[in-house]
Amino acid sequence: MDQTAFTIGFTIMSLASLAIYATGSKAPPARHHTLLHAAVPFIAATAYLAMAFGIGTLATPDGAATYLARYADWSVTTPILLASLVLTAFHERGRTGEVGGYLTAIIVLDVLMIATGLVSSLATAPVVKWVWYLWSCVAFVGVLYLLWGPLRALAAQRGAALSTAYRKNIAFLTVVWFLYPVVFLIGPEGLRIITDPASVWAILVMDVVAKVVYAFYAARNLDTALREHAPAA
Amino acid sequence: MDQTAFTIGFTIMSLASLAIYATGSKAPPARHHTLLHAAVPFIAATAYLAMAFGIGTLATPDGAATYLARYADWSVTTPILLASLVLTAFHERGRTGEVGGYLTAIIVLDVLMIATGLVSSLATAPVVKWVWYLWSCVAFVGVLYLLWGPLRALAAQRGAALSTAYRKNIAFLTVVWFLYPVVFLIGPEGLRIITDPASVWAILVMDVVAKVVYAFYAARNLDTALREHAPAA
Amino acid sequence: MDQTAFTIGFTIMSLASLAIYATGSKAPPARHHTLLHAAVPFIAATAYLAMAFGIGTLATPDGAATYLARYADWSVTTPILLASLVLTAFHERGRTGEVGGYLTAIIVLDVLMIATGLVSSLATAPVVKWVWYLWSCVAFVGVLYLLWGPLRALAAQRGAALSTAYRKNIAFLTVVWFLYPVVFLIGPEGLRIITDPASVWAILVMDVVAKVVYAFYAARNLDTALREHAPAA
Repeated sequence: MDQTAFTIGFTIMSLASLAIYATGSKAPPARHHTLLHAAVPFIAATAYLAMAFGIGTLATPDGAATYLARYADWSVTTPILLASLVLTAFHERGRTGEVGGYLTAIIVLDVLMIATGLVSSLATAPVVKWVWYLWSCVAFVGVLYLLWGPLRALAAQRGAALSTAYRKNIAFLTVVWFLYPVVFLIGPEGLRIITDPASVWAILVMDVVAKVVYAFYAARNLDTALREHAPAA
Repeated sequence: MDQTAFTIGFTIMSLASLAIYATGSKAPPARHHTLLHAAVPFIAATAYLAMAFGIGTLATPDGAATYLARYADWSVTTPILLASLVLTAFHERGRTGEVGGYLTAIIVLDVLMIATGLVSSLATAPVVKWVWYLWSCVAFVGVLYLLWGPLRALAAQRGAALSTAYRKNIAFLTVVWFLYPVVFLIGPEGLRIITDPASVWAILVMDVVAKVVYAFYAARNLDTALREHAPAA
Repeated sequence: MDQTAFTIGFTIMSLASLAIYATGSKAPPARHHTLLHAAVPFIAATAYLAMAFGIGTLATPDGAATYLARYADWSVTTPILLASLVLTAFHERGRTGEVGGYLTAIIVLDVLMIATGLVSSLATAPVVKWVWYLWSCVAFVGVLYLLWGPLRALAAQRGAALSTAYRKNIAFLTVVWFLYPVVFLIGPEGLRIITDPASVWAILVMDVVAKVVYAFYAARNLDTALREHAPAA
C-alpha cells in the first residue's frame, strides 16, 4: 500500500522537477525562481525514493511510523519555497543584508517548526508530544506573521502587479501548509484517528499540490506580474 | 536543579525573542538586524525546552552530561550573531559575492569550533578530548582573526560612527565568547573542577548575556551609529 | 597504513589552508574567493583528523569501511567550491536573488549527490546500493549541466577574460570530480576491486588535487582574468 504511494511520489516528483525546469522562464528577472521551484520536487523525489526502500523509516510495533526522509525533505524544501516568496517581496530591490535578514528569520522559524514536529512525532509521553506540537505551531504562527505582515508590506511597495502575485502565492501556500499539522494531529503520529496508509496517501496529495501544482501556479502569477511590472521598472 | 535552570532559560529566551522584535527598529537600514537578533533567543528557547525534557541529553554514569541541544543551538545562533557583525562591517556596500565569501569563511570556522567542541565533550580518551579541544580553539582563533582583522578594517572604511559600533559589538562578544571554552575546560566535559549543575547555571547566565543583553547592546550601538552615519551616506 | 594517509591528509590540508590564505588576493574584487578556497582545506583537515582518530568510521567485518567524516567534509566543501564558480560566472553583476537561485539549485543537486552516495555506501542489498549510486549520478549530471550550460552562458556575457577563467576552472574540477564516483565504484564501498587502503590513498591524492592544487590554479586563472577584465569594467 505505502510502497505504491512512495513509488508514485518518486515518479511524479522527478518528472515534475524536469517539467518545471523545462517550461519555466530561462531569462531574467524570473529564471532563478524557475531553478528554486525545480529543485524542490527533486529533493522530494529523493525522499520518496528513501521511503520506498524503508530508509530512515522508524516503525513502531502498533503500525505507526515516523518517516525521517519526509522531515529531511521538508526542512530543505520549505525554506526554498519561502526563499522564493521573500525574493518576490523584495523583487530586484533588496540589498544582500536585508534579504538575508528576512530569509534567516523566516527559515529559522520554519526549520524549527519542522524539527519540533519531528520531536513531537517521536515522543511517546503525551505531555512531551503535545508541548512540542504546540511549540511547532508557535513557530508556524511566526512564519505566517512574517509572510502576511512585514513581507506583504514590502511586496506592496513593489507595485500593484507584484503585490497581487505575492498575495496569491502566499494565500495558496498558507492553505496547503495548514493541512500538514491537521493531518499530523489526526494521523498515527498524533491522535491516531486515521491509519498510516491513509496519512501517507493524504500527504502524497498534499506534497504534490504544495510542491508541483504550486510551482506552476506561482510561476504563472509571477510571469503575469512581471509583464505588467516591467515597463514601470 | 538543572530542571529549574532549563525552565528559566526557556522562559527568558522566549520572552526575550518577542521583546527584541517588539522594541527593535522596523525600518531600513537596521530592521534586518532586529530580525536576526530576535531569531537567536527563539532558537535558544527551543534548545532549553529540549534540555528541560531531557531530549538530546547524553548522561554518563558519573554525573556528567553532554547536552546535544546546546550544541545544535550554538551551531545556528552563533553564525547568526556573526552574520549580523559581517553585515555591519559591510554596511550597505557589500556585493553578494563579497559578503557571502566573508560569511562562509567565518561561519565555517565557527561551526567547526562548535562541532569539534562536541567531539571533545563526547571523547573519553584524554588524548582525543584535548586534541579536539585544541583544534576547536584554533578555529576560535580563526573567528577572532576575521572579526578583529579584515572585518574591522572593512568597518573602518564605513566611517567613524559605524566603525565604533562594530568595535564595541565585537569587543562585547569576544569577552563573553571567551568564557565558553573556559567553562567547558573546568566543567564536567573537561577537567571536572566544577559540577554539572554549576556549569548549567554558568552557561545559562552566559547565554542570556551573549544572546539577550548583547542584542539590546548591539541594537543601541547600531542605531546610534546609523543616526550619525545617515547624513553622510 | 590508513593512519599514515590520514595524518598526511591532516598535515597537508591544514598547511594548505594557511598557504592559500597567505598567498591569495586580499583586495577586491577577488578577496572573497581567497576566503572560500582557504576555508575548504580547513574543513578537510578537520575531517582527516576525525578519520585519524576513527571518529565517524563505520567498519564492516570484511575490511571495508565507510568514513562519515569524509561525507560530512564533502557536503560542505563541494558547495563552497561550486559557490566560488557561481560567483565567477556572475562576477560583480548578480543580484542577490539571481545568485541565490543558482547557488541553491546547484548546491541542492550537489548535496543530494553526496547524501545519496552515502546511502549507497551503507547499503548492503545490491539493488539498494546500485539504485542509489545511479540516483547520485543523476544529481552529478545535474551539477555538470548547470556548470556547463546556463552558468557557462552567464560567464560568457562577462567578457572573454572571465569566460576563459570560468571554463578552465570548471574543466579542471569536472575531470577531478569524475574520479570520485569511479573510485567509489571500484572501491570497497562498491565492487570491491581495490582494497580499503588503496581507496584511502587514491582519495587522499584526489582530495589534495581537488582542494589544494585547484585552489592555486583557480586563483591564478581568476587573477589573470581580472587584470584583463578591470579596464573594461
